[in-house]
Order: sequence, then C-alpha cells, then structure tokens
Amino acid sequence: MRFLSFHCEEFKYKATKRSRSEVYEELTDDNKENGVKNAIVLFISVEKQDENNPSFIEKSISEIEKIIKQLKVTNIVILSFAHLFGQLSSPEFGLKSLKKLTSILEEKGFTVIRPPFGWFNELELKAKGHPLSRISRLI
Amino acid sequence: MRFLSFHCEEFKYKATKRSRSEVYEELTDDNKENGVKNAIVLFISVEKQDENNPSFIEKSISEIEKIIKQLKVTNIVILSFAHLFGQLSSPEFGLKSLKKLTSILEEKGFTVIRPPFGWFNELELKAKGHPLSRISRLI
Repeated sequence: MRFLSFHCEEFKYKATKRSRSEVYEELTDDNKENGVKNAIVLFISVEKQDENNPSFIEKSISEIEKIIKQLKVTNIVILSFAHLFGQLSSPEFGLKSLKKLTSILEEKGFTVIRPPFGWFNELELKAKGHPLSRISRLI
Repeated sequence: MRFLSFHCEEFKYKATKRSRSEVYEELTDDNKENGVKNAIVLFISVEKQDENNPSFIEKSISEIEKIIKQLKVTNIVILSFAHLFGQLSSPEFGLKSLKKLTSILEEKGFTVIRPPFGWFNELELKAKGHPLSRISRLI
C-alpha cells in the first residue's frame, strides 16, 4: 500500500460516473457526495504485493496514526487512487482492504469518509501550506 | 521525470514558508500567489535519472501536449512536487528543468503558472470528475 496525504482545511467530493473497474459500490444518498473540514485526505493505492502480506493494514494504520497525531486531526478521507506509480492489487482485494482500513480507524474513534469505490469524483480541496501538509508513505 | 495531472476547473496557490530546500526562488508580488481556471495542474518530480537523460524534457513536453489536446485546455500549472515515490534530482537540476519546461510550453503558446521553487504552498483545487481528470506519467 502507498498513499499521499494532503492536510486539508476543507474537502468535498461528488461521485460523477462509473470508472473502468468492474468492482464498484452502488451510489446512495449517503455516499454520492460528502465533505469534511480539517482532515487528512489520503489518496491510496492498494498494491499487488499487499495480497501476500497480511500485516500491511496494521502497518498502514500505524503510519496514519503517526500523521494524525502530528497534525492533531481526527477526520480522515480514504480515497482509492490508482495514479501513484505502483502496481495495483485486484479491485476486489483493494475494496476489501479499504473497507477494513476504514472500520479499524472508525473503531479507534476517528471520523472516516470513504467515497464509493469504482467511481470518478469531482474533488474540492483546500490544502494547507505547512511542512507536513503533503506526505507520502510506502508501506 | 514523473507527474500527476489533475484537470481543474479552478486552481489557486499561495506561497507560505520556505521548504527545506536550499535552492529557492525569491517571492515577488507576481509569484507569491496566483490562480487560473480550466487548467491541468501538474505535480512534477524531476528525478535523479533525468540528470543523465538529455531527452527527458522533450519527451515530457510530448506527453503533456497529448493530455492538453485531449482535454482541450491551454492553461498549465507546473508545481514542483516531491511526493511521487521517485528518487529526486538535485534541487538545482530540478529548478533548471522546470524553468526550461515552462519556457518551452510558453513558446508553444500555452499559459503556464509556476509557483516559486522551494516554498510550501496553500492550494485550492476544484478538480473535474471525468475519466481523464487524473492521469500519471512516468517519462
């Protein structure tokens, strides 16, 4: 798994149309658009190598928690993102992993927004400009 | 060189403070903040391997032009970005390369906005949600 983190004053998304992925989630009134203030927005690729590495979720949580503590935020956006130069996992494994990541972070008390898998989105970001505003991690 | 392209309805930046790079450009009234509508915003890493590959600028221009033609835009944001999982070139080479890229694209008639090198920025993006809204390229 690899991710790019943007610390955002404000984030909004709106699902627009189905992506090329055969795996997708149905749109509902709850997930088709949403927004949050003061969040880290994680553009995440689940990777091929994660399929054989059961500990990658735990390691990812640990890295995400470090960033959250440094930035003193409690809101997290989990955005599936294919364009980080890694070799992607199967979409089934990707979706399953992002759901698991979400539920663990929610159990820990964080507010998590996860745009529906398999859709293109309009995005609005107001990203902060301090030294930790943009971070990338390879797990 | 590698880049991530966001097709944006609107983009704004404001330089906030010096990054860790010893190489930086002075802030002026012209470059400390700016914005543009309907642009591709290119988050670009100039890489170590580019230092020994004189043709990488030409190849990058060719890839950028393909995207521009597909999206029918004429505005380009060239944003130096360290977080794309590549091995970065020296900052001197990075700045020189981004300046060269900018001047070639300007000579071709495009409007180019290049936030000053060596600074953290606040960013505002309104990114579109169509199939070519986000593209990554490894040159």
